[in-house]
Amino acid sequence: MSPPTATEDVIVSLKATNLDAITDNGGQILVDLKKGKPKGGRSPLAHLLPPTTLARFEKYGIDVSQGYPEVPPQEKIPTFLDEAFAVRNEGYPYVDRGKNADPEKKALFGAATEVIHLTKHIGTEIVGLQLQALTNQQRDELALLIAERVVVFFRDQDLSPQKQLELGEYYGQVEKHPQAQHLPGHDGITIIWPELFLQLGISSTFKQSKTTARWHTDLTHEHQPAGITHLHNDAIPKVGGDTVWASGYAAFDKLSPALQEFLEGKTAIFKSAHTYFDRNDPLNGKKQVEREHPIIRTHPTTGWKSLFVNRTYTDRIVGLEPGESEVILEYLFGVFEKNLDIQVRFNWKPTKADLGTSALWDNRISQHNAIWDYENSEPRHGTRVTSLGELPFYDSESKSQRQSLGLSLV
Amino acid sequence: MSPPTATEDVIVSLKATNLDAITDNGGQILVDLKKGKPKGGRSPLAHLLPPTTLARFEKYGIDVSQGYPEVPPQEKIPTFLDEAFAVRNEGYPYVDRGKNADPEKKALFGAATEVIHLTKHIGTEIVGLQLQALTNQQRDELALLIAERVVVFFRDQDLSPQKQLELGEYYGQVEKHPQAQHLPGHDGITIIWPELFLQLGISSTFKQSKTTARWHTDLTHEHQPAGITHLHNDAIPKVGGDTVWASGYAAFDKLSPALQEFLEGKTAIFKSAHTYFDRNDPLNGKKQVEREHPIIRTHPTTGWKSLFVNRTYTDRIVGLEPGESEVILEYLFGVFEKNLDIQVRFNWKPTKADLGTSALWDNRISQHNAIWDYENSEPRHGTRVTSLGELPFYDSESKSQRQSLGLSLV
Amino acid sequence: MSPPTATEDVIVSLKATNLDAITDNGGQILVDLKKGKPKGGRSPLAHLLPPTTLARFEKYGIDVSQGYPEVPPQEKIPTFLDEAFAVRNEGYPYVDRGKNADPEKKALFGAATEVIHLTKHIGTEIVGLQLQALTNQQRDELALLIAERVVVFFRDQDLSPQKQLELGEYYGQVEKHPQAQHLPGHDGITIIWPELFLQLGISSTFKQSKTTARWHTDLTHEHQPAGITHLHNDAIPKVGGDTVWASGYAAFDKLSPALQEFLEGKTAIFKSAHTYFDRNDPLNGKKQVEREHPIIRTHPTTGWKSLFVNRTYTDRIVGLEPGESEVILEYLFGVFEKNLDIQVRFNWKPTKADLGTSALWDNRISQHNAIWDYENSEPRHGTRVTSLGELPFYDSESKSQRQSLGLSLV
Amino acid sequence: MSPPTATEDVIVSLKATNLDAITDNGGQILVDLKKGKPKGGRSPLAHLLPPTTLARFEKYGIDVSQGYPEVPPQEKIPTFLDEAFAVRNEGYPYVDRGKNADPEKKALFGAATEVIHLTKHIGTEIVGLQLQALTNQQRDELALLIAERVVVFFRDQDLSPQKQLELGEYYGQVEKHPQAQHLPGHDGITIIWPELFLQLGISSTFKQSKTTARWHTDLTHEHQPAGITHLHNDAIPKVGGDTVWASGYAAFDKLSPALQEFLEGKTAIFKSAHTYFDRNDPLNGKKQVEREHPIIRTHPTTGWKSLFVNRTYTDRIVGLEPGESEVILEYLFGVFEKNLDIQVRFNWKPTKADLGTSALWDNRISQHNAIWDYENSEPRHGTRVTSLGELPFYDSESKSQRQSLGLSLV
Repeated sequence: MSPPTATEDVIVSLKATNLDAITDNGGQILVDLKKGKPKGGRSPLAHLLPPTTLARFEKYGIDVSQGYPEVPPQEKIPTFLDEAFAVRNEGYPYVDRGKNADPEKKALFGAATEVIHLTKHIGTEIVGLQLQALTNQQRDELALLIAERVVVFFRDQDLSPQKQLELGEYYGQVEKHPQAQHLPGHDGITIIWPELFLQLGISSTFKQSKTTARWHTDLTHEHQPAGITHLHNDAIPKVGGDTVWASGYAAFDKLSPALQEFLEGKTAIFKSAHTYFDRNDPLNGKKQVEREHPIIRTHPTTGWKSLFVNRTYTDRIVGLEPGESEVILEYLFGVFEKNLDIQVRFNWKPTKADLGTSALWDNRISQHNAIWDYENSEPRHGTRVTSLGELPFYDSESKSQRQSLGLSLV
Repeated sequence: MSPPTATEDVIVSLKATNLDAITDNGGQILVDLKKGKPKGGRSPLAHLLPPTTLARFEKYGIDVSQGYPEVPPQEKIPTFLDEAFAVRNEGYPYVDRGKNADPEKKALFGAATEVIHLTKHIGTEIVGLQLQALTNQQRDELALLIAERVVVFFRDQDLSPQKQLELGEYYGQVEKHPQAQHLPGHDGITIIWPELFLQLGISSTFKQSKTTARWHTDLTHEHQPAGITHLHNDAIPKVGGDTVWASGYAAFDKLSPALQEFLEGKTAIFKSAHTYFDRNDPLNGKKQVEREHPIIRTHPTTGWKSLFVNRTYTDRIVGLEPGESEVILEYLFGVFEKNLDIQVRFNWKPTKADLGTSALWDNRISQHNAIWDYENSEPRHGTRVTSLGELPFYDSESKSQRQSLGLSLV
Repeated sequence: MSPPTATEDVIVSLKATNLDAITDNGGQILVDLKKGKPKGGRSPLAHLLPPTTLARFEKYGIDVSQGYPEVPPQEKIPTFLDEAFAVRNEGYPYVDRGKNADPEKKALFGAATEVIHLTKHIGTEIVGLQLQALTNQQRDELALLIAERVVVFFRDQDLSPQKQLELGEYYGQVEKHPQAQHLPGHDGITIIWPELFLQLGISSTFKQSKTTARWHTDLTHEHQPAGITHLHNDAIPKVGGDTVWASGYAAFDKLSPALQEFLEGKTAIFKSAHTYFDRNDPLNGKKQVEREHPIIRTHPTTGWKSLFVNRTYTDRIVGLEPGESEVILEYLFGVFEKNLDIQVRFNWKPTKADLGTSALWDNRISQHNAIWDYENSEPRHGTRVTSLGELPFYDSESKSQRQSLGLSLV
Repeated sequence: MSPPTATEDVIVSLKATNLDAITDNGGQILVDLKKGKPKGGRSPLAHLLPPTTLARFEKYGIDVSQGYPEVPPQEKIPTFLDEAFAVRNEGYPYVDRGKNADPEKKALFGAATEVIHLTKHIGTEIVGLQLQALTNQQRDELALLIAERVVVFFRDQDLSPQKQLELGEYYGQVEKHPQAQHLPGHDGITIIWPELFLQLGISSTFKQSKTTARWHTDLTHEHQPAGITHLHNDAIPKVGGDTVWASGYAAFDKLSPALQEFLEGKTAIFKSAHTYFDRNDPLNGKKQVEREHPIIRTHPTTGWKSLFVNRTYTDRIVGLEPGESEVILEYLFGVFEKNLDIQVRFNWKPTKADLGTSALWDNRISQHNAIWDYENSEPRHGTRVTSLGELPFYDSESKSQRQSLGLSLV
């Protein structure tokens, strides 16, 4: 073989690629971009699974004998920015399960042995109910409760992955992340397993966390970002491993009316965690998917306004100079992070060691931060199902949470 | 009476005052500075006390029929800076109760039904023990535990104020705050009662806290600042009212070796919360007491290094230009406030509604922040006893907590 | 003499004071507040005056044989906040001299030998004209030029203080500062003389300036703040002593349209440099006069919008939470301070050593900063006349400078 | 042609490239990386040259008839990080011309008609001398003067590019920048020509500068970074286009002794302006060359300490946590940028319109910022010769400038 003679051919070919390679004009593959991706199939990590997780998988027929977790096949992982952008870029219908639920939630609360509001503005624990046994009426009331309380917890759950997925599907289109390692046979059930990060070479230290121990909201770069995320932890550290959530409703209420008005109607650019090749500029580094969403969004169920920004994925406010955007976003991130009265900190430990704990939170109205103080000294493993929400919108007629609840606005 | 004829006389008299007034050369009281102080005696607020508090007081013979709380008499409240500075300015002996305690704490742990480490670096809850029944051996082990875990919690306590005071006296000289309203007859037992703030006209709002809902360490301006503080809450909101602590040991371990070395041996100026007249400049506004302490201090019991600064009372680093001090202190405050893995958040609710909950924390190695999310919608009341500690020192041979425990230093 | 028996009398008397003292009910002077003030009369510093200044004073009949400068008499210096607030609190007519001037400034420019625009957005030097010989037509054109170019310079001026004052009176009500040391016999001509600061005990160092070497705008706390300030330096360091100005027009044009719109119509609180006793709270420290002005103001002459804030005297934006105000003001201060393309730096040295140099700037549309690099190693002395302007207003129909000049707005 | 069958081959080939391409194992060129580079040769922009520049070129025999400027040939432009790193990575001898010069500079000053120190700490203008006629003795004295005054200016210069280059070679190894467009036939003479940026598609706006209108020091990523840079502007805007320099000596003197001591002996990482492919990771975006230099360096000629960091190219302090490095560097950048008393602002306009102006500054002890207020409305063009300096070092015995000059250190 001889090298291409006409250098212009190469330039052209760099812009005319197929899905997975940089080719020349003749279709010759110059660089096989799939090379950087994991092969699809099963990871050989099943032997590292914690006993409680294995027991749950065995009980509910999740076969890990062929390996664990499952890695998406290469052909489903986007290589180019436009491919990543095309994932779920079309709108899909969103059914608001909580909208018409009983405001008093009698079916849900009546069946519980205890309902504990953990703080005033965010976080409720329900005791004495099994998530997998909820009726649809209870599920609707739970959707409303999550929309009001931002995050709802259930300890001591005997929950099959299949039922977890079913509940997620009831709440909306389940996100199937093209890159995420997931439960074998269930690409809607992703894995939260610090051991996996370690095996992938991503190691945090006491002084610097490399993973989720920073404030963020999940999947905000999507066309219809995450609504309810349900994380069920089936292996939980004996000490530590708390998660903290902060309320976007309450963050909005912390702002002055003048700053609220300034932000209402404005939008921000949200970036993806993953990066992709730019088809027109494949050699200049990978780029993130960017989408534009309102900074103040209205929750469809409660009709309450929420501050929708987060340090990890919100890049800039549209229409401001870079320096202006930077100081205002930094201030807004701080509203979530510094005001302890709009946060809840939850320790996942069940009262019965062989059962798991579930948290269901609404990503439209919250940020969270997973504390990594256990430093991989103890196992932690969870299955996560995310139900995507509506196309974010701002309704200028909507109210703030405190306004709606008749609380003081100063 | 005629006005002074020689204006110089007045100037002189402004510098030659007695304890409580600005006088002229003849001893004539020109301004009675006591006027701004509350009269001593009993406040008429006893009828506002929560039922659980009243029950505790009745059970243990605290008489509030003459009023509650007790206000210090005017003559004990410093008027001038030098008077305030003179309070406990002489060193007093400090007995380190934890120093020789059993490192395994067998007497304490053996008697407990459960010992729960709430996070890795900070916070332990002991279940099944009554603080007022501790033996001295158990008290010593508890002192060691507090020194190691920063803060220790006991729910469901039936604790008399008298026994709380006695425990505090065992741990060191009990702080008697000249301004603080306190339990009638017990000036070593101060009151944490948001209702009292309200009655004094100090009202917080959702957007702006005026009281303790900000990060601080107690009494850092003292010659021998607070060691162990014991807050026993006998009335607790049904929802909210958590307190958050952050560890000064772990904050030190978060710093780079280079910054640790820079701070070791340096000192900072700590300011008092209260203000006083400057005898030499009485008309230019009240001033704060200022004392100088090491920024990195060694805990006498554990021998571990701790970062000793806090946003509320640390004013400046000695030897730096103001702008330098400002950015470095702001960074150090953020180490405590932003690293959720070195914080513990505690909800005070007892499992039995008629009992109280105690927290004992070490102010030498922590900051805390009392969350005011209950917004005075529910009663909260506690009695506090603070045992003062040693004169702060830095021992260049001492180790960090993680170093001592053999944990990774990166 | 015996002390007052009824303490309530004293409390009352602290609120019922005459202009200069805290008295009791019987009119007894308890504290003579005039004591902190300089006595009126002449300072004994004339012998320190630089030779060029002395020569000018001699030529124009300014007699310093009785002392220099003149200190305002005590009875004219406000003691209490309300007295300070009352100074020029009534509106007075403002005549806009530049409004109807020839836009081409033919009379002014035609008489000059050279007109040098020092930078694009700010600063013009006029060569070959004597300020004291200007016709009214030329003065009007100069007013227009200052309004357009923010600051205008004239070197090699042979200018009598009397003529300087007359020009200032032509431009508006001349500010007579109740505290300022001034030219003997002329309380409208204040002194800029670093030697005076030194004699008053205010000493700057290389690392920390105590005086005007920080960004500020003059007299922004007044009801009708400063319009044109005219500083004539008659003694100028051989090296250094530059002054820098930044344009408020250009600062406005640096903002995004969204932030411009946010600020338009909003106001800020401006604080005075001097402090006064609060009549109702005389023992709690002196306080500053505070007045509220638009953040974006329209210049009456040009009709252009200007950003009107400065680090030294602008305290907070009305209607924002404190934290919001702080980050936005800090950003706005930085727009003036960091953008070198909207600044002019001027060295005062005349081409003829025995003549002086004048700068006339418009405080409505600028900040400035007097560089103290000569470190008192050489004399510097100037006479200053400030013509107060209109009540600040914002006209929503007004344009930005670049908009009006047809320059790019991005 | 068929695609490679063994995908592993491609992976291997991505790491085994020749200088300018990504190839497969067989040497097949997969991606021709030269495609992104300008072709060598002459740019067709000569017709845009300003008249004064053309006159100078014609006078001194610079032929632009074949195009202007000259673009380096592709084969000299590094593609890969290791190639860029190899450029001048070997030490070369540095001759310190100023070291033994007459401290009184009698030959230089004696020949000048005037020597103007523009500010106290930085900047001197020499009047009445032609740079191209300097004797070696005068050149040595000039080197010493630059080392002392940081930047020295000469207006009204009739200077041939050849003589400019010769002077640069006298002062050290002349930097030949592999990417820089330069004078035809003289790769040691680079071009400062905003018009060129425009033609390359780099356009600044009033609100955002894309080029050199930010604080920086030249070429700090080199093994032996720039010593004296000599910029001769032969076309100068009628209004604006000033450059500002700040002194690293004085910046060091602004720090507290404690912070000085902290920084002494520490190093920082400096990044290059240009980016290159990582041979081991060619598809993950281009990377910058990084080199490590002392933060406090000693100038070889004066023996004075200088603060050596700049916002544009200093990335991080070695040995600090990222957050620590960020706040301390931001503070240090501000020392240069905010302290107007250690800056000089220079307007380049000659007194004779057909002559040029030269600035010679020392990059070891300064930052600068080229103000773009003329907004391409007028031509600006200059030729630049940079003499590289010694390997940066810190001598713990060296003194600060103010210490050495006997000035106050507070």
